[in-house]
Amino acid sequence: MLGRLYDTQECSAARTLELVGERWTLLILRDAIFRGYTRFSQFQQVLGVAPNILTKRLNALVDNGILRAVPTGRPDHHDYVLTEMGADLKPTLMALTAWGDRWVRPGPAIFVHDTCGTEIVQRFHCPQCDETVEHQDIRGEARPDFVPRG
Amino acid sequence: MLGRLYDTQECSAARTLELVGERWTLLILRDAIFRGYTRFSQFQQVLGVAPNILTKRLNALVDNGILRAVPTGRPDHHDYVLTEMGADLKPTLMALTAWGDRWVRPGPAIFVHDTCGTEIVQRFHCPQCDETVEHQDIRGEARPDFVPRG
Repeated sequence: MLGRLYDTQECSAARTLELVGERWTLLILRDAIFRGYTRFSQFQQVLGVAPNILTKRLNALVDNGILRAVPTGRPDHHDYVLTEMGADLKPTLMALTAWGDRWVRPGPAIFVHDTCGTEIVQRFHCPQCDETVEHQDIRGEARPDFVPRG
Repeated sequence: MLGRLYDTQECSAARTLELVGERWTLLILRDAIFRGYTRFSQFQQVLGVAPNILTKRLNALVDNGILRAVPTGRPDHHDYVLTEMGADLKPTLMALTAWGDRWVRPGPAIFVHDTCGTEIVQRFHCPQCDETVEHQDIRGEARPDFVPRG
């Protein structure tokens, strides 16, 4: 677990990694989001992870609202289905992948437009200037309505 | 360290987290990228992390090519400056932050266009259809020219 000092860091990026940054968890989410896997046996086969670890990771994702456990009818068997919260991790996985593709090595997957099969480009848009903005021209600033945790 | 089985997972998202997913590391990068910090004392003060841990994390980032250690002239003192590889993590941090802002709680920072101060929108673009694509309409597929690790 993280120490008290780390807990004082108000950071949404860090909070996201708290929930999904554990390594097997990320691969489970990749397979749920991009391969449509829902079954324990599917995750186990492709990941080759020990069943007790997989159980722990899936349960944590359910507890955190990222997956939903849906009874299959067989006793003690569930399908693990992405919630909206879970499905919304797709852009995060795409950003992590884009950086690894560029700076580590090209991985086995690309991301394409479902209807035409063309590779998708990630962009930043300024609604005021109505133009595409490079990340070099983006800065962080304080959220005006930020409420620190009480 | 990760086990052998995990190593067989060819995944750029996982490889990225290998390099930057450790929790303090992410916060160091946040402060380097969005606050422009370069000094050991700056990171130490804002993070409140033990000096030996901070040293370890900074050295790992230097070893992995994400920061560059630049001598300051004082013996054993360095500035830690982002490489292009490191600066290119900005979109990843923004994606992690956007998800945490939405699904955990709004954090203290927003990302704005440097020239006009307007909050930036993250988008996916299809160059073939020349339109903005929602993440629901993006799928993963096999990279045509993928070369597995030998």
